[in-house]
Amino acid sequence: MSLTVVGSVAFDAVATPFAARERMLGGAATHFALAASFFDDVHVVGVVGDDFSAEDEAVLTAHKIDTTDIEHVEGGKTFFWSGRYHDNMNSRDTLDTQLNVFETFEPKLSEASKAAKTVFLANILPSLQLQVLEQCTEATFTAVDSMDLWINIAKEDLLKVIAKVDCVILNDEEIELLTGEPTIVSAAQALLELGPSIVIAKQGKYGAGVITKEGSFWLPAFPLNEVHDPTGAGDSFAGGFVGYLAAHPERPVTLEVVRRAMAYGTAIASFNVEEFGTDRVSRLTGPEVVARVQHLASITQFDDTTQIDLRR
Amino acid sequence: MSLTVVGSVAFDAVATPFAARERMLGGAATHFALAASFFDDVHVVGVVGDDFSAEDEAVLTAHKIDTTDIEHVEGGKTFFWSGRYHDNMNSRDTLDTQLNVFETFEPKLSEASKAAKTVFLANILPSLQLQVLEQCTEATFTAVDSMDLWINIAKEDLLKVIAKVDCVILNDEEIELLTGEPTIVSAAQALLELGPSIVIAKQGKYGAGVITKEGSFWLPAFPLNEVHDPTGAGDSFAGGFVGYLAAHPERPVTLEVVRRAMAYGTAIASFNVEEFGTDRVSRLTGPEVVARVQHLASITQFDDTTQIDLRR
Repeated sequence: MSLTVVGSVAFDAVATPFAARERMLGGAATHFALAASFFDDVHVVGVVGDDFSAEDEAVLTAHKIDTTDIEHVEGGKTFFWSGRYHDNMNSRDTLDTQLNVFETFEPKLSEASKAAKTVFLANILPSLQLQVLEQCTEATFTAVDSMDLWINIAKEDLLKVIAKVDCVILNDEEIELLTGEPTIVSAAQALLELGPSIVIAKQGKYGAGVITKEGSFWLPAFPLNEVHDPTGAGDSFAGGFVGYLAAHPERPVTLEVVRRAMAYGTAIASFNVEEFGTDRVSRLTGPEVVARVQHLASITQFDDTTQIDLRR
Repeated sequence: MSLTVVGSVAFDAVATPFAARERMLGGAATHFALAASFFDDVHVVGVVGDDFSAEDEAVLTAHKIDTTDIEHVEGGKTFFWSGRYHDNMNSRDTLDTQLNVFETFEPKLSEASKAAKTVFLANILPSLQLQVLEQCTEATFTAVDSMDLWINIAKEDLLKVIAKVDCVILNDEEIELLTGEPTIVSAAQALLELGPSIVIAKQGKYGAGVITKEGSFWLPAFPLNEVHDPTGAGDSFAGGFVGYLAAHPERPVTLEVVRRAMAYGTAIASFNVEEFGTDRVSRLTGPEVVARVQHLASITQFDDTTQIDLRR
């Protein structure tokens, strides 16, 4: 089995009300791959410039992530993003976006990447996502992320991608924007009708919900005393979620398995935000993840079997 | 046993992107009392004007809610609030606030209201909340709500109230504003140090969390296909939550009981928002509440005992 992720490898500059970092390894594919590497062999398809060092690459290869399909553009610079988080750490302003080599990114998949059973299309131009999907003919589970930009300027292509994948992973507001529906339940149901069997609504610091034709499941974010850098939380979540499903290859995926996949994604994402960039997830261990999944279960369950005499 | 709530009885005008109502019974004490009436005898302490009709009062008395302490001010008009919800139904603009008789409200408690074992101080001037607390000498469980206005202009009095109650029920952003802490966990812990044993963080359409010294518990809102009027959801939640605790008089309250109380509050709040004003909760039945609590359990639980071989 193996898992291919196509998306950005980047350098990020992040400022929060408490601290700042001027340059660190980031990007959707990076955060996704590190989280997914707990579960499966991961191939990253992306593009970087001359400034991407052997040390940067080692962050991935240290976890046996295959970087063969990360194209190095000579004379180019790696995608750079800079943002500042507000006091609530849930919303942020983008200060600078330099697409650099990412602007003309054309995913080139090796035979190994094409042969993956699981494919995650991180947030890139929808027409590129479509090209990747067409090459991954062995995939038994495919998932897509996107953003408001593509919903606004490339909606038709994005809807074509959504029609072909098994799972859509978006922020709740993006799902509502995409469908024009006023509640996340009606919006997710509208997406299910387009073809996917699973819709994940990410809710930022509040957690995430999943809606399938079988039913729904809702999980809060893991409560943290301190949050240091929310960047990449959504991609870490997706990496844990999709990775868990890659390691459980029975198809179709059941809601029971999806619930546990949500818990693993939520746990890994919570580690991601505890430190800047990839610092925490880079040195995260399996037992730490399992302990947090169990803690998550303990703070979300209640006993509904206790009888009570209601007066009405 | 009995439960006293002190707070606003009002008329609301509400507009959403889909519909509008020009005048309907509302107010924090009204929504709270209707929810709490599933669990205990409820006394409402409030004030209204000549425009408060026998029909309005009957909405409460139909559920055996004691309205003896709702003062009628001759020649006065009842508190009026008007608001418009945004597309996401989670944020709103206040269009008009006419305090009317509520501006000079001085809670007057009968002996029955003073003798209540459970007291809820809905969102009113903190110095009035203090006066009420001092009169309720029999109470074994007290809870307080407030708002950003009082945090900004009457913080000292509000902190005095908080130091005296068992439970604080606020929006997460209000708790962060009040304490200056950046995460809801650190903010709630700061409040616990002031005296209360339970802090509830309401999260709007995302649900609510509770933090006690025993631990925390997080529950999503009940997912709804359609939301027609979010007004009073927080007060319905508080009514279900505090009402449940009133009906479970063992003190100190355990986190196990608090978890179930959260589920009942969440279930009743979800009915509240399905129709305008008090329409839905007025005719809500116990079996409907119980069924929704059970459904809530089924969409929030996952099995954390399944073993998985992680690669790291």
